Amino acid sequence: MRKASLGCRHRKWSSIYTAGMNVRVDAISARELYRILLSAVAPRPIAWVSTVSPDDVPNLAPFSFFNVVSAEPPILGFSPGVRTLPHGHEEKGTLVNIRATGEFVVNVVPYELAEAMNLTSGDYEYGVNEFEVARLASRPSEMVTPMQVAGSPVSFECRLERILDFGADGEGSSLVLGRIVCVHVEESVMRDGKIDGDALDLVGRMGGLQYSRTTERFELKRPVVKR
Amino acid sequence: MRKASLGCRHRKWSSIYTAGMNVRVDAISARELYRILLSAVAPRPIAWVSTVSPDDVPNLAPFSFFNVVSAEPPILGFSPGVRTLPHGHEEKGTLVNIRATGEFVVNVVPYELAEAMNLTSGDYEYGVNEFEVARLASRPSEMVTPMQVAGSPVSFECRLERILDFGADGEGSSLVLGRIVCVHVEESVMRDGKIDGDALDLVGRMGGLQYSRTTERFELKRPVVKR
Repeated sequence: MRKASLGCRHRKWSSIYTAGMNVRVDAISARELYRILLSAVAPRPIAWVSTVSPDDVPNLAPFSFFNVVSAEPPILGFSPGVRTLPHGHEEKGTLVNIRATGEFVVNVVPYELAEAMNLTSGDYEYGVNEFEVARLASRPSEMVTPMQVAGSPVSFECRLERILDFGADGEGSSLVLGRIVCVHVEESVMRDGKIDGDALDLVGRMGGLQYSRTTERFELKRPVVKR
Repeated sequence: MRKASLGCRHRKWSSIYTAGMNVRVDAISARELYRILLSAVAPRPIAWVSTVSPDDVPNLAPFSFFNVVSAEPPILGFSPGVRTLPHGHEEKGTLVNIRATGEFVVNVVPYELAEAMNLTSGDYEYGVNEFEVARLASRPSEMVTPMQVAGSPVSFECRLERILDFGADGEGSSLVLGRIVCVHVEESVMRDGKIDGDALDLVGRMGGLQYSRTTERFELKRPVVKR
């Protein structure tokens, strides 16, 4: 095993000898780096995003490059990747719809809906209604057109704030930023006026085909600092 | 319990009757919405971010509004909130350093480092070296100045791509986007040339003081769609 100080810049990542070294990104393939990101940036929260097409066909798909981006103003962000097809790249239906309508709903995913969520992750043709594919009931939103997933304990109605596009035209991913305008919390997950983690029973996304439950939790008290 | 269709727009969130309804964001306090976000957007991956000040003092702090923002080009994003102090708001040291130097390292957090990570989350005065506070060893980076956390199984060296600032001047949060230029993966988490989830043993951030382990995992096969 050679040491990092001897230089690993031109080694291939696929070599086991690169483990434990600092490896330049340009020395490994995009696919290899993607696999590392999926494993190491985890557990990822899942945004189950509902949109409508300009002619009102609902769309529902999960995204795990997702998080709160700003608490105040309240902004959620998620990154739909591009879909790679035999004839080239194209944007996912979710992104096409948001560009056209400026609206989306983020629903959270409890363990009991994990299989249904996974069904909606299929690479369906644009125009397929994934609520129907997964036989999911919906409930109306208050301030945007896309429906909420009825079984989801918390839904955030969002208006598009902006989209950042990365990479050369259409070949890279995009970051969608939406301002939360309305919130839905099911009474079943409330305990003493607060949301209860056990009742939420959320799942997170890990690498490969893996997900993680959130049942094994622990608490850490923030350190007290005198200033 | 009144129905959502009767209108909940002007009710206070603190009322239990708003659960199960769509509640406009302008009807609840920022603090209340923040608590909902922390509970419902979960589990969140943790970026343990190392930076240096312009005069080379190391800084280390955890952030859970964090995720992959683009796979290709490889970009990580995280949002440092503002720190609220008796005399007003100020930016966190991490953000001050990144604005000045354009560099940072994201280290991931395994369960065995959770307590140390928590120690570095304290509201220390700018200029305090959290590596020393938490007695953490460091290892050198290859392409940026900030050091890596020696005990972290995966570190990403990043160069600042851009910073998005939200809200009125200095009062809102910011989104830091950094391009990954170098990756470090410890050999101890590699199995058959791949990163192993059990060996990584990552923790995620939940609401309140809670964290979640990633030991209770399950797999779902992506649906096969004929096109």
